[in-house]
Amino acid sequence: MENGSRQWRFQGNKRLSLTSAISLRGIVEMLMGNLSTDDPRPTIPLGNGDPSQFPCFKTPTTAEEAIVDALHSAKYNGYAPTSGVPSARRAIANYLNRDLPYKLSADDVHLTSGCLQAIEVALAAITQPGANILLPRPAFTFYESRAAYENLQNTVAMVVINPGNPCGSVYSYDHLELVAETARKLGILVIADEVYSHITFGSTPFVPMGVFGSIVPVLSLGSISKRWVVPGWRLGWLATTDPNGILQKSGIVESITGCCNITSDPATFIQGAVPQILENTKDEFFSKLMGTLKEAAQKCFDGIKEVPCLTCPSKPEGSMFVLVKLNASVLEDISDDLEFCMKLAKEEKVVIIPAGKR
Amino acid sequence: MENGSRQWRFQGNKRLSLTSAISLRGIVEMLMGNLSTDDPRPTIPLGNGDPSQFPCFKTPTTAEEAIVDALHSAKYNGYAPTSGVPSARRAIANYLNRDLPYKLSADDVHLTSGCLQAIEVALAAITQPGANILLPRPAFTFYESRAAYENLQNTVAMVVINPGNPCGSVYSYDHLELVAETARKLGILVIADEVYSHITFGSTPFVPMGVFGSIVPVLSLGSISKRWVVPGWRLGWLATTDPNGILQKSGIVESITGCCNITSDPATFIQGAVPQILENTKDEFFSKLMGTLKEAAQKCFDGIKEVPCLTCPSKPEGSMFVLVKLNASVLEDISDDLEFCMKLAKEEKVVIIPAGKR
Ligand SMILES: Cc1ncc(COP(=O)(O)O)c(C=O)c1O
Ligand SMILES: Cc1ncc(COP(=O)(O)O)c(C=O)c1O
Repeated sequence: MENGSRQWRFQGNKRLSLTSAISLRGIVEMLMGNLSTDDPRPTIPLGNGDPSQFPCFKTPTTAEEAIVDALHSAKYNGYAPTSGVPSARRAIANYLNRDLPYKLSADDVHLTSGCLQAIEVALAAITQPGANILLPRPAFTFYESRAAYENLQNTVAMVVINPGNPCGSVYSYDHLELVAETARKLGILVIADEVYSHITFGSTPFVPMGVFGSIVPVLSLGSISKRWVVPGWRLGWLATTDPNGILQKSGIVESITGCCNITSDPATFIQGAVPQILENTKDEFFSKLMGTLKEAAQKCFDGIKEVPCLTCPSKPEGSMFVLVKLNASVLEDISDDLEFCMKLAKEEKVVIIPAGKR
Repeated sequence: MENGSRQWRFQGNKRLSLTSAISLRGIVEMLMGNLSTDDPRPTIPLGNGDPSQFPCFKTPTTAEEAIVDALHSAKYNGYAPTSGVPSARRAIANYLNRDLPYKLSADDVHLTSGCLQAIEVALAAITQPGANILLPRPAFTFYESRAAYENLQNTVAMVVINPGNPCGSVYSYDHLELVAETARKLGILVIADEVYSHITFGSTPFVPMGVFGSIVPVLSLGSISKRWVVPGWRLGWLATTDPNGILQKSGIVESITGCCNITSDPATFIQGAVPQILENTKDEFFSKLMGTLKEAAQKCFDGIKEVPCLTCPSKPEGSMFVLVKLNASVLEDISDDLEFCMKLAKEEKVVIIPAGKR
């Protein structure tokens, strides 16, 4: 009985098979698979925003204790309500309110499995036949992967990533206000990816896009991944920062709830730990983190200057990335950035990723 | 400046807004919102498979310890690789191998955020223009919500939920073999939802669909939610139980990886705890759980007999549900099952859900 030659009626989803090749994760995994195994040097993984692998970045013990407390309380072993545990939604609303000129309520906050799932929910909620969004470029490729999957066309929204991955840029108040006014003129909403909120170490302070929520409705996305150095805990949120209630009237809020109804949630006990995590982390923890990142950014920037084929268009002021321009024409056997990354991984066990291509 | 009257170009995704109304979660939340608030009696939540709210159902301390150990190791704070932490994938493969006539490897297992996300991944992986799946009825409505969202048509797969929600049924070896042969004849794959695997307390033992993987390729979905009474931990899996490698050849495996690349994961430290959870739980824990469920099923079955408008077509032998038939014609002011559920919630604070309608 030969199974292989039978006629089966199913086949893989081509849209998804394609995303493997173009997704950030697909590329990082390809590069990690390309490391030489008999090289005793440690791998230097700089391909994604995950500093937790380096000993100088450690989450505060208060955050760990919050998880253990929530777990041992045995109150958070069951399913969470749609959009999350109320105390966690409230704690995040309070956290965001510190920087806003109006007040969010717990109902404005939807908990997600990291900022990644907040992106999924945001893009799913605005999907329409013929709808389209504006994406920054170069940018975090997850947006392109999800937008391609959702078949988006015809502009209804724009994405702003601030502080920026991969440029390390931080937008000023005036710049963000202009963005808001432009979006308002176009009649489109703003999706503000603020996964790096408050991760700034240059002269420009972080201003949340939600500050301009009365000019244009904003979906503000965030997570504890970066600021608490725990990307593996998968706790994020989507907040509707929209004091005029336009997202409510246009059915976007209902779509968000609909999407939360048919997707999985972050672990309930991690949700249960959120109030303690957000409220009990000392300012010193954050200032130490900013000091370390600032120092690392400076070292990278200085080091890159020494390498003939590389230039750094601007010194990072925020997030956890530095964008580097490669002049491949100076190199003998390398034709593009992907090849450069492949060889760097293979020969030096340093994993970085191409930013501009996709 | 009146924002409400402006022309905005975006609107909510109608497909998603609709799912709110028909999703299981949407209905449970609606019923919970309908409880009388000045009734001092405790709510009796029987609307979803979440026994963790009752003190007689408690996860073993070994499982809790496994989480704390993984958390404190500080090895699992970062992003997990696509499809999951290798040791967890291996532990789940070993766990499933106990009941299979061939051996799965870690590569056959993809970790998901509960069985719910395994369903998402499975349905996304087989989506094609014009593709369709066969769903059991009455059944767990999450399948209909996701299938509607993915726009499925034209049969490529069938879903088998065993042990069954909501019927409490357990299929015999012979029955499952017939299912496999039928699927093979039709050239379609089987999606086996085994979230209630090993949760049987009648005369029919649990047989995993993967046992028939050489007759027909099977996507086996599971989680620790039910057997370890921790639905809030959001740890599940999708395993390709397919010794002939047909899912590999047809591109389904690549689509699964593509989907894992562009969706969020279960928390890494929960993944890290999986080997300890699966390996260290004593048999007594499971047998005590089965005893409690058996007793509860019997009590329900006997109690229902006393109620004139209700009948129970068959006594549950597995899962955590009992299906009840309502004869609304005997009741004065109730026209259908949804109304019955609404009034039961309001008047008695007992939350149950309509099974047959959607
Ligand atoms: C711009 C941007 N958005 C979102 C994410 C994902 O964040 P999370 O780990 O909270 O899902 C990342 C991760 O690197 C990112 O760079
Ligand atoms: C048949 C069925 N599949 C899947 C699930 C979801 O399982 P999980 O909590 O692991 O996501 C449930 C939950 O009740 C269910 O009844």
